[in-house]
Order: sequence, then structure tokens, then C-alpha cells
Amino acid sequence: MTKPARASNPLPISRFPVPKLTDMPPDVRARIEAVQEKSGFIPNVFLVLAHRPDEFRAFMAYHDALMDKEGGLTKAEREMIVVATSAANQCQYCVVAHGAILRIRAKNPLIADQIAINYRKADITPRQRAMLDFAMKVALEAQTIGDDDIKALRRHDFSEEDVWDVGAIAAFFALSNRMANLTGMRPNDEFYKLAR
Amino acid sequence: MTKPARASNPLPISRFPVPKLTDMPPDVRARIEAVQEKSGFIPNVFLVLAHRPDEFRAFMAYHDALMDKEGGLTKAEREMIVVATSAANQCQYCVVAHGAILRIRAKNPLIADQIAINYRKADITPRQRAMLDFAMKVALEAQTIGDDDIKALRRHDFSEEDVWDVGAIAAFFALSNRMANLTGMRPNDEFYKLAR
Amino acid sequence: MTKPARASNPLPISRFPVPKLTDMPPDVRARIEAVQEKSGFIPNVFLVLAHRPDEFRAFMAYHDALMDKEGGLTKAEREMIVVATSAANQCQYCVVAHGAILRIRAKNPLIADQIAINYRKADITPRQRAMLDFAMKVALEAQTIGDDDIKALRRHDFSEEDVWDVGAIAAFFALSNRMANLTGMRPNDEFYKLAR
Amino acid sequence: MTKPARASNPLPISRFPVPKLTDMPPDVRARIEAVQEKSGFIPNVFLVLAHRPDEFRAFMAYHDALMDKEGGLTKAEREMIVVATSAANQCQYCVVAHGAILRIRAKNPLIADQIAINYRKADITPRQRAMLDFAMKVALEAQTIGDDDIKALRRHDFSEEDVWDVGAIAAFFALSNRMANLTGMRPNDEFYKLAR
Amino acid sequence: MTKPARASNPLPISRFPVPKLTDMPPDVRARIEAVQEKSGFIPNVFLVLAHRPDEFRAFMAYHDALMDKEGGLTKAEREMIVVATSAANQCQYCVVAHGAILRIRAKNPLIADQIAINYRKADITPRQRAMLDFAMKVALEAQTIGDDDIKALRRHDFSEEDVWDVGAIAAFFALSNRMANLTGMRPNDEFYKLAR
Amino acid sequence: MTKPARASNPLPISRFPVPKLTDMPPDVRARIEAVQEKSGFIPNVFLVLAHRPDEFRAFMAYHDALMDKEGGLTKAEREMIVVATSAANQCQYCVVAHGAILRIRAKNPLIADQIAINYRKADITPRQRAMLDFAMKVALEAQTIGDDDIKALRRHDFSEEDVWDVGAIAAFFALSNRMANLTGMRPNDEFYKLAR
Repeated sequence: MTKPARASNPLPISRFPVPKLTDMPPDVRARIEAVQEKSGFIPNVFLVLAHRPDEFRAFMAYHDALMDKEGGLTKAEREMIVVATSAANQCQYCVVAHGAILRIRAKNPLIADQIAINYRKADITPRQRAMLDFAMKVALEAQTIGDDDIKALRRHDFSEEDVWDVGAIAAFFALSNRMANLTGMRPNDEFYKLAR
Repeated sequence: MTKPARASNPLPISRFPVPKLTDMPPDVRARIEAVQEKSGFIPNVFLVLAHRPDEFRAFMAYHDALMDKEGGLTKAEREMIVVATSAANQCQYCVVAHGAILRIRAKNPLIADQIAINYRKADITPRQRAMLDFAMKVALEAQTIGDDDIKALRRHDFSEEDVWDVGAIAAFFALSNRMANLTGMRPNDEFYKLAR
Repeated sequence: MTKPARASNPLPISRFPVPKLTDMPPDVRARIEAVQEKSGFIPNVFLVLAHRPDEFRAFMAYHDALMDKEGGLTKAEREMIVVATSAANQCQYCVVAHGAILRIRAKNPLIADQIAINYRKADITPRQRAMLDFAMKVALEAQTIGDDDIKALRRHDFSEEDVWDVGAIAAFFALSNRMANLTGMRPNDEFYKLAR
Repeated sequence: MTKPARASNPLPISRFPVPKLTDMPPDVRARIEAVQEKSGFIPNVFLVLAHRPDEFRAFMAYHDALMDKEGGLTKAEREMIVVATSAANQCQYCVVAHGAILRIRAKNPLIADQIAINYRKADITPRQRAMLDFAMKVALEAQTIGDDDIKALRRHDFSEEDVWDVGAIAAFFALSNRMANLTGMRPNDEFYKLAR
Repeated sequence: MTKPARASNPLPISRFPVPKLTDMPPDVRARIEAVQEKSGFIPNVFLVLAHRPDEFRAFMAYHDALMDKEGGLTKAEREMIVVATSAANQCQYCVVAHGAILRIRAKNPLIADQIAINYRKADITPRQRAMLDFAMKVALEAQTIGDDDIKALRRHDFSEEDVWDVGAIAAFFALSNRMANLTGMRPNDEFYKLAR
Repeated sequence: MTKPARASNPLPISRFPVPKLTDMPPDVRARIEAVQEKSGFIPNVFLVLAHRPDEFRAFMAYHDALMDKEGGLTKAEREMIVVATSAANQCQYCVVAHGAILRIRAKNPLIADQIAINYRKADITPRQRAMLDFAMKVALEAQTIGDDDIKALRRHDFSEEDVWDVGAIAAFFALSNRMANLTGMRPNDEFYKLAR
């Protein structure tokens, strides 16, 4: 057997410079330390994006506005949208990290992998299937969205505000996935095993 | 000749509710009135997104962080990225509105249409062509971005920070284009003719 | 800020030799001078294709047979088909030149850009939308055209002859767009501003 | 075994009306009778397109200008371009009819099927492979044609006029293939067996 | 006219080593000699795959299990599936060899070329059209197969076992086509002319 | 919050009938019981495919010929090919089941998810990257495989036999993925957690 040319070392967490906590603006650092305290580790997205504090702040504000709000979507359903669309965009960070969050929110150790690989074969309700069909259309061919797509969602009892939420989450992770692929953002090892 | 079934009325500016200025939170309203004073009209993106004030604030903060900053890209070049990637996403609002801004910034009445239709045939420098090739890759297949793509940009004398800017602008408008297509955001008539 | 490597000069009107008016066969020259008199300038398509007089004559005869005939499609509708399909083919010459003609024929300064960027969001009638859906199918995946596609058009009150016209215009500009992209045909500056 | 619902009858030669020879304008009829005398049968493309005499005349003039001219491409090579691009467009009429002509011109009973199915695996020279690569690019993504593509052909000793020919043949059959798919043009049974 | 750089020699039957009959394991050799006796020549697929006797045996066993069994599909219909999906995969060997078998089984000299080029325009029954639509979906986007696709086939009077057969044949030739393209498997000259 | 229409029950392991162990032919049953003894559970692929004993036997023989043989590829590398190409085909069963096997073979709890989501960002050697690039080409566009692709692999020190292995594994799982998507094959819950 031919031996591999060299053992492979783990890739770095970003292609771009990553600031130290002590070099960050106080508000950015505070946010990161709060997450660290809650999770037990710092998800790399925080460190990678902290390279640009203004973009970091806007990114986090946008994320929270969509993911932490009240509404007709459960927190697990919001994460389903993230996982399905991030898989379509082949975003390693988002699938691994939000896959873990989805397992936690849904209290289901299988659902994240099912949705990431082929959401059409996942153990979800018809309503959730309609939600993901719409989210995938926003992610992959938003230019074809028409009134009929909206109506199809409404028939599954999504309110007008829910429709905005589904679409806006898919749209926000279109940005997030591209930033992760641009920076080569590496998921923390901790995520892979969470809530399995 | 068969007569069209009915004359066509202009489509509305959004599929979702559009708040009145007087119903908006003061900071949102203030931002909009400042734009109105400067431009002579309110670009519809402000009215459409104001339906969700928290998302509005994050969106505008993100936009300003990328488009109004200093760096190796001119303001015209930033708009070139917006126009090229928004055309690939068939985003009517962004191509029309940012096309107008590009004509103004570049002092060139032809450049926006050239880039929107086929940026490979536009009157741009080889350096700008490399910039748009990279931006299009982020917009359309970010999962394939590798170190070689970064190096290709660096050879055209883009700094590491410039590379982030090019990619981040393409990523941000991946979000913006999807919100416009989701909401059916209509460009103001005023944009079409500006700086022709 | 890094300075662009060099200012960009406008690209030439063709990658191939462009004959002088005085070197053209008399009938080709006469046709071109007639257009010049009517329009005030010579659209570059005439000069670029005159490199091959026999192809020039066949091209113009085909064009006139489809675009100048009577029938159930208005002249503006014929131009809508040209603009929508040429945009899908990213043909700079055809979108810019026929966009101008569409604005003139439709007496509507917005319609050409709307259709070029995303015809699904343009201010058109449902009948025109069906016409463009069919034309785009001919342009992009004619191999899947079936009787059901024809019936869908007929239900919008297009005659059998109209169906041929819609398809044949899309087919002719499949040729035209490819010749423009092959030759690097440059739209005249005059077109950009016409009828805005 | 379940029995097929009904035996299948051959499809008609066109979805649109097909004129009788005696109803055609004299010049159209004369052209068709000349072909019939030479070939022993009337290729259906003549009958199907004769429904529109002006388009018929322009189509045939264009065809002859490209396929019957002198130049650096042999007649067999011109037919190779037709077969390769028509197969990519899934055009039954053009692959079957021009496949037969290619077998005759190349005096090779295998070459047409080889090129239609996968031109990359056909028994052709490297120069012919470069020619077909270029033709396929014109057929399928002409918007990306750049100076480098032209240079690649020139390195294989194609003159500037040959490059035009290769591209123009691919462009003309982009039209022809779409007309055949629009009309449901049926190849004559005679073609299948010719020169096998 | 520029002369081709060199006459083209036929490509070899495989990119990989091809064993001699006398070097093959007895069972492999016996199978091949039986085919040779029946057909009058040895189809290249046997020689090419005999390079790997274990894979050869499994391949042939799989093939026979699907193609020689009883059931609701006629032998001609099984070959239709092979030809349609192999054409979509641009597999020269399978289209040429199974095209010949289809002509024989269907006693129809036209059907193989019709299906290979565009099965939507072939002289087949609506039931066969449904069968090929399903087979193409398995070949090209099996991940989207859902219960509705199965039901559509069942409505055309295919039994549950027939549905498996249609899908499994398409799946098996997904393997076969890739082996042929990997090895550069060349069809025997004899196939081209059989049953024309 | 709107409540989901109904709780979702897990999907069945196959859309087709699944035989009982006691109804299977003795050799099929023996093979399955051997696996069960070794693994502690019966992977569903065995039960689903046992519906067709002849196909079952051919499938397993083919699998073993490729996956259990000696050669220049490690067992982990063979599984990398399975996981990468099965993810591209969105095959839930293969990604989950072979992902588990890959984690075991590579003694690496992260590698399967990394490769499934985006193999370009996985912790692998340049040689393994070249192997997966080739395998993906076989999986997704085998018709474009040329001698240059083979040479690129050879430069990474893969022998001619290794090249066959890489391609043949990708080809075999093209079949396997389609059978899993056709049957709606459900991965066993046990796989998700193995070797994390």
C-alpha cells in the first residue's frame, strides 16, 4: 500500500487573522465571554467574525432578531431551516454547529443529520416539509418565488409573519454560509458530539 | 390582433405590510428621513424592511460597515460587486437601485448595464475583472472557494483586507437579494433614469 | 487605496474585422445607410455582421420576417421576448439595443430593465407572462417542449400562428445572442439612454 | 405481463400545419423539388418550415452560406459541429438527418453516433476535438467566450475566418434545433439507415 | 484548407489492461465464449471488465437478475430504460450496444436513436413515457423521488415489482455507464449496424 | 404559536416489502445473521435488498470485491469515497451508515461529517483530496473523464489499479445511492452515534 504523502494537520479556524480576546472592543469581548460561560467553549464563528467588529455587531444583531424572537415557528424549526439551507450551500461550520443546536432544541439525536443529508427523507411533519421546501427555494432560486409559493405556505397554517421568518432565516444564512466558506471557518470539535 | 386580457398595473412595493413613517420607531424614521432629504425620495428598501425594525437596524448597520468604509476598493468598485452579483441572482431592486449608484460613483452612464448583463464584456480593468470573478464565485458557489482563489486576487494587488471586503459584499448581497425577492421589493421609478 | 493597474479603454465593436461602408456590397451598404438615416446612427450589429455579406442578408431577412410581420403579438411584445431571452443568454448587445426598442415600442421607460433583470417581477399582463414563460423554455430547454406547453399558451388566447411566432423569435435570438457573444459585439452608446 | 395501453402510432412530422407542394410559392417548391430529385425523398425540414415561406427562404440562405462555403473546415467537420451541438440540445431531427450527412461526408459509418453520444470519446483528431470544444461552448454558454478561447483554436491552426465558421455554425443550429423542438419536427425514416 | 494534424486512429477498447481469453479464470472465459458463440463476436464490455474477475462476476449476475427476469416489463422496455438513461449519462458503449439490442427486441429500427436523442419525442406509448420519466429521475436526481412518483407509475398499471424493476435498471446502469466512462470502453463496430 | 399538524412518526425502512429472516433463502439469511452477530444489529440495507435475493447476492458480491480487497487505498480511504459521493447524491442511508464505518476505520470522530458536508474543507492529505476530486467527477460527470484526470491521480502516486478502485467505488455507490433513494432506505438509529 502506498503511504499518504504526509499526515494531515487540522486546518486553522480562519483564513484571515483572528484577534485575541484581549484585543477586542469591550462589547464584542463581553458578548463572547457570555457565550463561553453558557456553552463552556467559544464557538469559532465569534472569533472569526470579531476580526471586523462592526460587521460582528451587525451579524449578531441580525441573528438574534431572527432566531431568538417569538412567533409561529418553534426554535427547533428555525434551526431546521438553518441546517437544510446550510447543507445545500455545503457550509461546514453552519451544518455542524447548528446541527448540534437543532439536536438540542428538538431533543432528537437523529434529526440534524437527516435534514442535512436529504430533508425530503427526514422524520418531519408535512407542515415542516412545506416550510423547508420554501426555505430551500429562497436559498437556491429566490428569483422564482411567486405568490403561489406564499399561498402554499399559508395553506399549512403559517401566518404572514411566519412566512417572512422562514424566508428571512434562509436569506440570513445565505450570508452566513458565504462568510464561513470565504473565511474557511472551522467548526469547533465540541459540536460534533453534542446531544447525540 | 388579440387584445391583452387587461392593462397591467404596477406591482406594489412589497408583498408584506409596509408601515407608515409615523408608525415607525423614531430611530428608524430618522434614518429614513435623512435619506429622503439627501436623495429627494425614499428608496423602497427602507420602507419594505422597516416592517421589522430590529432586522432593519441590523441590515443597515451591516450595509454601512461594508459599503461606507475606507480600504483598497473604491466606492464604484464596491457597487460593481453589488450589481454583478445581484444580476446573477436576478434581483430587480438591487440591480436597478445600485446600478444607479454605480453610474454616479463611476461617473459612467454605461457601466452598470454592462456589468449587469455580462460583466465579462464590461469596460473594466483586468484587476476589476479578477475582483468580479471572485465575487461571483462567492455569490454562486462559495463552497468551492480555496486558497488558490485568494492567491489569484492577491496577485492583482488586493490586500488581505480587500479580499474580505470583496467576499463580504458578495455575501451581504446574497442576503439582500433574497430579501428583495422574498418581499417582491419594487425599485423606485426614480432610479431607472439617474445618471444616464 | 491601491490604484487600478490602468484605466480601461472601451472594448472594440467586434473581435473580427469590420468592413468599411465603401467596401461593402451595394445592397448591404444601402440597407445600412437606410437604417442610419432613420436612427441617426448605425447600430453595430449591421457593421459587425457585414463582415460576411451572405450571412448578413440571411440574418436581416430572418429578422424582418419575424419582427416586422402582422399577427397577434404587438411589436412591443415581440421585443419583450427578445429582451427576456437575450438577458438569459447574457447578450450585452441584444439586451441594450432591443431594450431601447422595447422602451420605444411600449412607451414605457421601465419595462426593458424590469424584463431583463427578472421578467417574473415585471409590470406585464398574465398573458404576457405566459408568453415569456414559453419563450424562455424555447431559449433554455427547448427539448422539453410538449403539447401541454402549447396548450397553456392557447388558453391565453394565443393563436397557433402566434405560438409559432413566440417560439421562432426566441429561436432566432438564440442564434443572434450567440453571434453577438462570439464576435464580442458592442452595443452603441446611443442605445443606453434612448426613451428613458 | 401488463399489456401496453395501446400500440403507439408514429408522431406526425410537425405540430403545425404542413403545406402541400402545390400550395407553396414557386421558388420554395422549386427548391424542394430539387432536393427531392437529388436525395430521392423530401427531408421533412423543408416541408415543416415551408409553412412560413419568408422564414424558409432566410433559413435556407443562412444554411447554405455556412455549410456550402469554402474554407479551412471540411464539409465533414462542419457536420461534426452540427451533430455535436444538436445532440447537446437533444434535437432529434438534426442529429438523425445531419448524422446521416456526416456519415456520407466522412465516409465513416461510426462517427456520427460517436459524436452524438459523447464527442470526447469519438475517433477524431486533437484539432477536431478543439473545434468541437469551442462549438459546444458557443452552443451552451456563449456568454463566457473570451479571447483565450479564440487563441486556443488558433493554436490548432484555425484561421480567424475558420473561428467565425465554427462559432456561426453552432449559433445557426442553436436556432435550427429550437425550431425543430418547437415544431416537433420528425426525421424521415430514410435518414436512420443512410451510409451505415 | 488547413490539413488535420494527423489522421485519427481508433481509440483502444479500454484505458486499462485487457486480459487475453487464455489468461482468464475458466468461468469468466466460459461465459465470454458462450456469448461469442451466440452473437458472433465478443462485446467489449466482457473483455474490459474481465480485468477484474470478481467484479466481472458480480456485474454479470446483477445484469442478468434485472434484464433476464420475468415481469410486467417487456424485454424491449427494459432496453428502453437502458438506452434513455445511458444517453443522459453520455455513455457511448451502453447507447451503442443496448441501442442495437433494443432495435432487435422491439423489432423497430428507429426506436433506439429516437430514445437516445430525446425520449420525449419517441414513438412510444404514454405508459412507456411514464416509465422513462421515472427512470430518468432515478438516473439524474434520485434524491427527489417521493411517494408521488411511485403513484404516478402505479396509475399507468405498473405493479409494485415493476416499479422496483424500472428503478433498479436505471440504478444498475448508473454504475455501468460510469464504469464505461471510467475505462473508456469502446463499443464494437458490429453494434452500430445491427437491426437497422 | 401554531402547533404542528401532527407529531411525525419515523418513516419505515423501505417503501417496498421487507421479508422476514425466516422467509429468506438460507444463504441470504446466513449472510445477514453473520453481520448481525458481528455488529450487534442488522443494517437495514440487508433487509431492504433481501426483497430480491438475486440482486442481493450480486450487490453484496460487488461490494465485497471493491471494499474488502487489498491495494493502495486504505479501508478508511475507500469509505471516504463512499461518504463524499453519497453526500453529493443526498443518500441518507449511505452517508449515515458509511459515515459510521469511516469514523471507525479512520479512528477519527470528525472526518465523516467533514467529508459529507464539504470534502474540500476536510482534514485530509493533498493525495486524498485528489482521490476525492476524481471520485466526485466519476459520480457527477463521468462523461468528461479524460486521460488528464487519470494522470492527475497518477502524479499523486496512485497506481493504475488504484485508479480503477477509486472510480469503481464511486460507480458502485452511484448504484447503491439510487437503490437507497428508490426504496426510501432508512438508516438504523445505531449508526448515528457510532465512534463519535
